[in-house]
Amino acid sequence: MGRLRKKKGLLEKLLEKDNYLVKNPVEYKGKWKKIFGKDNLHIELGTGKGQFITTLAEKNEDVGYIGVEKIADVLFQAVKKAEDKELKNIKFLLFDVNQIENIFEENEVDRIYINFCDPWPKKRHTKRRLTYREFLSKYKKILKINGEIHFKTDNEKLFEFSLNEMSEFGFELRDISLNLYRDGDLDTVKTEYEEKFINQGKPIYFVRAIIK
Amino acid sequence: MGRLRKKKGLLEKLLEKDNYLVKNPVEYKGKWKKIFGKDNLHIELGTGKGQFITTLAEKNEDVGYIGVEKIADVLFQAVKKAEDKELKNIKFLLFDVNQIENIFEENEVDRIYINFCDPWPKKRHTKRRLTYREFLSKYKKILKINGEIHFKTDNEKLFEFSLNEMSEFGFELRDISLNLYRDGDLDTVKTEYEEKFINQGKPIYFVRAIIK
Repeated sequence: MGRLRKKKGLLEKLLEKDNYLVKNPVEYKGKWKKIFGKDNLHIELGTGKGQFITTLAEKNEDVGYIGVEKIADVLFQAVKKAEDKELKNIKFLLFDVNQIENIFEENEVDRIYINFCDPWPKKRHTKRRLTYREFLSKYKKILKINGEIHFKTDNEKLFEFSLNEMSEFGFELRDISLNLYRDGDLDTVKTEYEEKFINQGKPIYFVRAIIK
Repeated sequence: MGRLRKKKGLLEKLLEKDNYLVKNPVEYKGKWKKIFGKDNLHIELGTGKGQFITTLAEKNEDVGYIGVEKIADVLFQAVKKAEDKELKNIKFLLFDVNQIENIFEENEVDRIYINFCDPWPKKRHTKRRLTYREFLSKYKKILKINGEIHFKTDNEKLFEFSLNEMSEFGFELRDISLNLYRDGDLDTVKTEYEEKFINQGKPIYFVRAIIK
């Protein structure tokens, strides 16, 4: 019970953070750029503990950022990071990526980040992978023309799958890397997982996919 | 001198094989399908000792095959294989891939195979890689619309480079594999190198690139 109570407390605390957590995102569909007062909207799907997106928000004040995450526990930590950094250009949504078309209008999003998402290795779970064609179809809708997906993973088979799905779906693939840090560290913004994998010497895969 | 004499003898012997070696290929530009009496023309660039293309020719009698190789020594072995198998649907050219537009007419070729070509790892040698954009531009010319390049390599960096060049050049990428024999052997036609690498447990990379 102790653990359960603690978790409930966390969700309640998360819901109180209404300067960062948008509780009714469906109402803001098509209005996100206005809310931020920015011309650029970049979103991260599965934002986790938020190191990646809060660092980006800190670096790029001219961009509005939205982190989408369905697990309250980790999202709370992301919100805390934004709070600590006193960021003005970021919002978080406790939401399922499956429903993304209900939050964003067609052509509303300039860039989507997907970092180290669940590889769902079993064949019967193919449809759950965030780069499965049905998801790509949703991303295509909400992305503007020439909008981009930036995709990173440590999972070779998921990367292979994703390249094929993206290419078949008509995305143009750029900056494909089979080992992003092959020649040493790069001045990239990294997720928590990414730092761990780099330290373990695991290759990181990357692709930038452009929708036409 | 002994070795030199032996090599000279080999080239002479190769040139005698005029049922398989086409000495004046420029004259047959645009006429290859007629010569074979086939509707399909598949070529291999850097055909080496010829195991791959002679096996294909044996299996697919409805396709005319041309193996292009600039090194006489190895091409001689390829020709010998074709001779042993008494193949009727294959020719070999002792020729540099750089000059490929002089041998094939626009839209003449249905498929190009490039297998385990030299990776030219040094940056200053980028232009020598057979998937460098200038080469792709030549392939595009000689390939018909919806023609394909089938590319295999054991070299991760060359594969990464090739995916990026092909995608930027507007090829559609299909069947990308970062480890073709991950789940065990496949009923594919293999080159001599490929068999060696599989035995060593090295991953083989593959992509099928379609020109639109």
